[in-house]
Amino acid sequence: MTTVKVETAPNYNVIIGKDLLADCGTYIAQVVKPCKAAIITDDKVKGIYAETVEKSLQGAGFETVVFAFANGEGRKNLQTIEAMLEFLAENEFTRSDLIVTLGGGVVGDMGGFAAATFLRGIRFVQVPTTMLAMVDSSVGGKTGCNLKAGKNLAGAFYQPKLVLCDTNTLNSLSDEMFACGLAEAIKTGMIANEELFDICAKGNCRQNAEQIIEYSVKFKAKVVAQDEKESGLRQILNFGHTMAHSIEKLSDYKIPHGQAVALGMIGICRASLKQGICSAELVERLEACLKINSLPTQLPFNAEEIYRIATADKKRKGNKLTLVLPKIIGDCTLQPMELGDVKAFFEKAF
Amino acid sequence: MTTVKVETAPNYNVIIGKDLLADCGTYIAQVVKPCKAAIITDDKVKGIYAETVEKSLQGAGFETVVFAFANGEGRKNLQTIEAMLEFLAENEFTRSDLIVTLGGGVVGDMGGFAAATFLRGIRFVQVPTTMLAMVDSSVGGKTGCNLKAGKNLAGAFYQPKLVLCDTNTLNSLSDEMFACGLAEAIKTGMIANEELFDICAKGNCRQNAEQIIEYSVKFKAKVVAQDEKESGLRQILNFGHTMAHSIEKLSDYKIPHGQAVALGMIGICRASLKQGICSAELVERLEACLKINSLPTQLPFNAEEIYRIATADKKRKGNKLTLVLPKIIGDCTLQPMELGDVKAFFEKAF
Repeated sequence: MTTVKVETAPNYNVIIGKDLLADCGTYIAQVVKPCKAAIITDDKVKGIYAETVEKSLQGAGFETVVFAFANGEGRKNLQTIEAMLEFLAENEFTRSDLIVTLGGGVVGDMGGFAAATFLRGIRFVQVPTTMLAMVDSSVGGKTGCNLKAGKNLAGAFYQPKLVLCDTNTLNSLSDEMFACGLAEAIKTGMIANEELFDICAKGNCRQNAEQIIEYSVKFKAKVVAQDEKESGLRQILNFGHTMAHSIEKLSDYKIPHGQAVALGMIGICRASLKQGICSAELVERLEACLKINSLPTQLPFNAEEIYRIATADKKRKGNKLTLVLPKIIGDCTLQPMELGDVKAFFEKAF
Repeated sequence: MTTVKVETAPNYNVIIGKDLLADCGTYIAQVVKPCKAAIITDDKVKGIYAETVEKSLQGAGFETVVFAFANGEGRKNLQTIEAMLEFLAENEFTRSDLIVTLGGGVVGDMGGFAAATFLRGIRFVQVPTTMLAMVDSSVGGKTGCNLKAGKNLAGAFYQPKLVLCDTNTLNSLSDEMFACGLAEAIKTGMIANEELFDICAKGNCRQNAEQIIEYSVKFKAKVVAQDEKESGLRQILNFGHTMAHSIEKLSDYKIPHGQAVALGMIGICRASLKQGICSAELVERLEACLKINSLPTQLPFNAEEIYRIATADKKRKGNKLTLVLPKIIGDCTLQPMELGDVKAFFEKAF
């Protein structure tokens, strides 16, 4: 078991280990006095883990209720948020009560947003059950939901009181879903930690899940603590993501986020190689690492298409786009670029 | 013209004076570089002031769009918030852009909540046009909307970049609406500033609006800076409000907030007199002050009814309710009370 402290205001711990679900009540009671706890989850995860979590919370003195919505991105909208908030109000939750999110990224983002906005903020604990949620969305305080106009356009920065990553829950993930989470860990390796990259590059990553999560969370925690509201530094975490967001959107979200990140990273690295920013060896190592983990490396859309969507990205400031470019494995750099240059740069990815 | 600095994180100024609307672009440009500005307002206020504000913003280099919703509490819900967020997305607003709320409390609360949640937070400037919004909701960072289950149950603490109180806009308020705002100023006098109370007690308050707003804002700014998230100290601002919220709800919101606050204050003071907490003179002075300002002093519901609703109040912690009790004019005290004692105490108000 490993504990990583996230130094946001207020700070909190991410605990990573086996068999945490059955004892979650004990861990949660160490940071929140027993009260009413709403377990927010989706119907799929509810069937597998909700009973264990409820039993453990009740054993520690919490009173529990469960709110489950249909699994998937389709319900990641303000109607579902409203249903959650009305549910909390009907159950007479006060500012002294608690939300426990149990599930993947969608559940964590949505439950966290409900926590951020119910009575202008009640406490929440995150229990991620996917690799992607553990290595990525469990740290950073990004909560929210989609609008008709686009993904994650509504939300809040809001920190949990505790994050519990039970690596046993990864056993219920398909290999494809596990690999999607791994893509974010490989990204962290690329931007900050060659050792993490090399662990991922060996393949067989389920065996090293605890260490991969620990390294990923530690780095993200460091970045987020320095830039809680995403004003600058945190942009480094967007390595591969500008292209990835476009690819997801162009595929009508049929390509999952992790696969899109893999494609975005390889695209940016190929372009950087042609621009003389990184070596051919870097591109080869990344490609091999993605392949051994069953992640894609062939861009399914052209530069023109990717550019068009990327320039509508919400993170854009004025007429520039900040790209994250690789220098060596373990070190990247932020590069603000005129929109016209971005297009030419993207063309080098092919 | 008066400027009050609110020392929240980040801090901001409240500017109070005549003819500010026509120059709002200049004031706003001093804190926000010209960008896209969405003026969020209601249909009633839009007809009177939106053009002046748009013209001034455009003159200062801002690009403007206007979103207006139907006046009144009926539209203070998540559907309207969603419409605002989709509007901002359709107009391609980024984190570098701005919301300007123009109107009363509902507009400020709603537009502020949209600002807090669009792209996880964009900047906003508040231009309150009612006495209530100027003396009360312009400071404190409380944004939000109603749920089916109750008023203001969804929201966020989120600070504006600037508040502009143009006292000329008070001329378009009915006397009843002006008095409603005054009730909150009288409250501030009761809890913290005998001079402010005495100014209000003289009547003819429209003449002294700028000073009344200044004193009210100064005190609220001090309290909010010390307790941004309403964890304790800020409860002092709830003087008269526990009863007031019940009275509003019992009247099905036909009794406006300010009148309910007047009734809540007089109720609490009468009960405090019988309990030996304050003097008969205090009750008489408050009664006279409310009457001269056309505010009501006869409680329209009984203790039992008020108690029943008050105990469902979201601010309650466990089995106690914290009441704000008057000592002398200009000084109140926080008193946590067992629910059973609250009922007996409320009965003394009659």
